[in-house]
Amino acid sequence: MSDDSSARIVTGLRAWIAQAAPGAQVPSNRALMARYGASPVTVQKAMRTLGALGLVESRPGVGTFVRAVRTARPLDYGWQTAALGAPRARIPTLSTPLRSSSPDAIGLHAGYPDRTLLPERLVRAALTRAARGATALVRSDAAGLPELRAWFAAELAEATPVGVTPPAARDVVIVPGSQSGLSSIFRALAGPGRPVLLESPTYWGAILAAAKAGVRAVPVPSGPDGPDPAELARAFTETGARLLYAQPNYANPTGAQWSHERGDQVLDVVRANGAFLVEDDWAHDFGIDTTARPLAALDDTGHVVYLRSLTKSVSPAVRVAAVIARGPSRDRILADHGAEAMYVSDLLQAAALDVVTQRGWLTHLRTLAQQLRARRDLLIDSITEHVPEAQLDHVPRGGLHLWARLPDGTDLDRLARDCETDGVLIAPGAEWFPAEPAGPYIRLNYTGPSPERFPDGAHVIGRALARQA
Amino acid sequence: MSDDSSARIVTGLRAWIAQAAPGAQVPSNRALMARYGASPVTVQKAMRTLGALGLVESRPGVGTFVRAVRTARPLDYGWQTAALGAPRARIPTLSTPLRSSSPDAIGLHAGYPDRTLLPERLVRAALTRAARGATALVRSDAAGLPELRAWFAAELAEATPVGVTPPAARDVVIVPGSQSGLSSIFRALAGPGRPVLLESPTYWGAILAAAKAGVRAVPVPSGPDGPDPAELARAFTETGARLLYAQPNYANPTGAQWSHERGDQVLDVVRANGAFLVEDDWAHDFGIDTTARPLAALDDTGHVVYLRSLTKSVSPAVRVAAVIARGPSRDRILADHGAEAMYVSDLLQAAALDVVTQRGWLTHLRTLAQQLRARRDLLIDSITEHVPEAQLDHVPRGGLHLWARLPDGTDLDRLARDCETDGVLIAPGAEWFPAEPAGPYIRLNYTGPSPERFPDGAHVIGRALARQA
Repeated sequence: MSDDSSARIVTGLRAWIAQAAPGAQVPSNRALMARYGASPVTVQKAMRTLGALGLVESRPGVGTFVRAVRTARPLDYGWQTAALGAPRARIPTLSTPLRSSSPDAIGLHAGYPDRTLLPERLVRAALTRAARGATALVRSDAAGLPELRAWFAAELAEATPVGVTPPAARDVVIVPGSQSGLSSIFRALAGPGRPVLLESPTYWGAILAAAKAGVRAVPVPSGPDGPDPAELARAFTETGARLLYAQPNYANPTGAQWSHERGDQVLDVVRANGAFLVEDDWAHDFGIDTTARPLAALDDTGHVVYLRSLTKSVSPAVRVAAVIARGPSRDRILADHGAEAMYVSDLLQAAALDVVTQRGWLTHLRTLAQQLRARRDLLIDSITEHVPEAQLDHVPRGGLHLWARLPDGTDLDRLARDCETDGVLIAPGAEWFPAEPAGPYIRLNYTGPSPERFPDGAHVIGRALARQA
Repeated sequence: MSDDSSARIVTGLRAWIAQAAPGAQVPSNRALMARYGASPVTVQKAMRTLGALGLVESRPGVGTFVRAVRTARPLDYGWQTAALGAPRARIPTLSTPLRSSSPDAIGLHAGYPDRTLLPERLVRAALTRAARGATALVRSDAAGLPELRAWFAAELAEATPVGVTPPAARDVVIVPGSQSGLSSIFRALAGPGRPVLLESPTYWGAILAAAKAGVRAVPVPSGPDGPDPAELARAFTETGARLLYAQPNYANPTGAQWSHERGDQVLDVVRANGAFLVEDDWAHDFGIDTTARPLAALDDTGHVVYLRSLTKSVSPAVRVAAVIARGPSRDRILADHGAEAMYVSDLLQAAALDVVTQRGWLTHLRTLAQQLRARRDLLIDSITEHVPEAQLDHVPRGGLHLWARLPDGTDLDRLARDCETDGVLIAPGAEWFPAEPAGPYIRLNYTGPSPERFPDGAHVIGRALARQA
C-alpha cells in the first residue's frame, strides 16, 4: 500500500517536473502528504526515488528543487539517416582557404586579405553613419538599394566603350556576397543536370556552388592566358552547355589576366554558342601592374553575367555583391535570389555605398596596389630563394595569390601537414580543380598577416619539400 | 584613293574609340594627317563619318571627342529564351506583404511591424558599438558567432523541462534570415520531388521556399487549434513524407497557438513517422496574452528543427536567424548554408547579440506586448463595427495579424483593388494557401503605421465589400 502510494506520488511529481522550470521548488512534504493522503515515510520514499532519478535535489533546511543540471544521457539520432536518405551531392564542409589560423602561424592559405589591408577607417565611419541613418531600421526591395545598384551600374558603364549600351541600375541585383550570387546564377541559368563549363583550375567556391546547384561541371583547361578558344568551342559543342563560368581578371588561383584579344575570342565563342559567360570579377579592386578590364563592359547583348563583390576589398563583415545581367536572365536571377534570401540588409548596403563613394576609397585602392606589389614580390623572392623547385607559370598582375607548381610526385597532403606542424599554412591545389588536378600545385596568399615572415614561411616549405626528395 | 584612306582612318579610329573612355579627346587632325599620311580633306571626311555614326562630337575651337552620350538602340535578348529553356518551377516574384506603400496609405498588408515598434535606441546603440568593435572587419565560421549561437541555445534551454537534454551552441547554425533558413532546410532535409507537409493556410515564404527547393508541397488543413493529428497521420502515411513545416505559436496567417495537448499529439505523430517537424517560431517575441512555447524545447531526439528569427523583432536590417537542429540533420543544413552563403556578416551577428542581451530588450518586449494588444483590439473593434460581414475564427493571442473570412463569393482581387484606390492596402488570403484557398480570407496586419487610422481603414474595407453585395 505504501509502495503503491509512493509510486503514485513519483508519477504525479514526474509529470509536474516535466513542465517545471529547473530550480523550481517542489511542494513541501507536508503539502504532498495532504494532497496524496500519504504518510511522511511514503512521501520521503518518493522523494528519494526522484532524487535517485536525478530529477530533484534537496537542500537541507531549505526544501527540494527541480534539478538545474540536466542528465547528460547519450542521444541517438540514427533514425535521421533513414529519413534523410543518401545526400544528393557530396558537399565539402570546410575548405582550406576558410580555415582560421592561430595568430602564431604564418598563414599563406587564406582566401581573404589581412585586415591591415582593409580600409578600416572608412569602414568604421560608414558603419557608424549607417547605424544613425534610416537604413538601420528598414527593409529594401529584393533587388537592393537603388543608389547602390546605380553605383555598380555606373562603375561598369565607365568601362563601356562608345557604341555599346552601358548597363543601368535596373540590370543590377544586390546579393549577400559572391557565393550567394553564384548559387543563384547556377540555379537560375542552368539547373540540375545541365552542363556548365568551368575553367580548370578555378575558384573552389564556384565548384562548390555548381555541385550544390546540381549542375554538371565540365572542366575546360585554362592557363596564364585564359582558356584556349578552340578547346572552349569544342566543349560547348560536345556538351551543349549554355554557361561558362570564368575569371578573366586575376583568376583565382592562377592569377591569369586575359589579353584583349583572348577576351574577344572567348566572347565570340560564347555568343556563337548562344551561351552565357558568367564573369566573376572578384579581384576588381586588386590590380597591381594593370587594372581589371571587365568583359561585361564590351557586351550589351545579354551574353555576359557580371559578378562583382565588395566583401574582400571593403570588409568581410560588409557582405555585399552585385550581379549585373540583362534580359530574362536578370529576372530569373532576381526571382531565385528573392525566394532564397528575400533581401540583403539595407544597413550593409548603405555602408558599402558610403565606403566606395568616399574620396578616401580611391586613395586606399592606390595604396593597396603598392602594398600588394611589395607583398607579391617579397613572397616571390622568398619562394625563389627557399623553394627553388617551385615553378611559377607567371607573375600575377593582380589578385591575392601565387600559384606554384611543385615537382611531379610531391605528396601535397603530407607537405601541408608538415608545414602546419612547423607553423606554416598552405593551400594544396587540388581544391581548385573541378576534376583531377593537372599537377601538384599549391596556392600561396601574399595578403595574410605579417609579410615580414614570408621568408621564414618559404624556408619551412622548402625544408618540408626537401624531406620528400 | 582618298576614299580608301578615309575608310582606313575610320577603321583605325573606331578601334581606338572602342577602347577609349567617353569624353576622351580624339587625336588632332594634324596628328592624324601625319599618322595616316593623309590630306586634310581625307581626315575631315573620316571625322564627318565618325560624327554621323554617333561616335564622336566636335566642339569648335576645342577639338573632337568621343561621345559621352551613348546611342540608345533597342536591345534584343530573345536568344536567352532558348538558352534558359522553360523555368523549372514558377516562382512568384513579389508577394503582397513585401509591397511598400505610400506614406499616405493605410497599410494593413505588410508582413513586418512598423519601425515605431522596433527597439530603435537599442538597435542604433548596438550597431554603433559593433562599428567600433572587432566584428566590423572579420569573417566568422559558416555556423556563426559562438556567443550568438550560445544565446540561441540558452533561450531554448530555458524552456526545456527536466529530463530533456537541452540544445547546445554546437546545435545552432546562424543564417541570414528565416527565408534562407527555410531554403536550406527544405533542400537539405527533403530535396527535389520529395513530399513536404505544410499547414494550410501557412506562411507564403515557406510555400515559396518549398517551390524553389523543388519539393512536393502537401497541404494539411490547419485551423485555430493547429492541424488535426489524425489528418496529419493520414498525410504522412499516404505520401511517405518525412517533413512537416508548421508554426505552433501565433501561426502566420491564422494567429493560432497550439495547446500543450495538441503539441504533444503532433510530436507523437511526427516521431511515429520517423519524420522532422520544422517549427517556425517567427513570432517568438510577439506574444500578447500568452508567451510562445517552442515544441523544440520538448524534444531531444532530433525530430524538431527549430527556426528562430530576430529580423522582425530587432530590425529588418539586422538580418539574423538561427536554425537549431541535432544530429545529421544539423550537419546537412550547415553544409547547405555554407555552400549557399558561406557565412553571415559578423557585424550583424554581434549587433543582434548586443540587442537581445541588454536589460532594455526585456523592457521593450513587455511594452511591445501592450502595444500589440492595444493595436489588435482596436483593429478587431474597427472591423467588427465597419465590416460586420467579416468573421474572425478567433482572437490571436500573439503575432502581427488578423485572419478574417469574408462572405462566400467575395471577389478578393476586386476588393483589394477597390481598397487600394481608396488608400487602404490589404492582403488577399490566397497567397497563404499551398493549394486552392479554403475560402475568401484576408489578412490584416495590426502593426503597420498610424493605428489611429484603423477605423478609417476598416470603413473603407466595409464600403468596398458593400459594393459587391
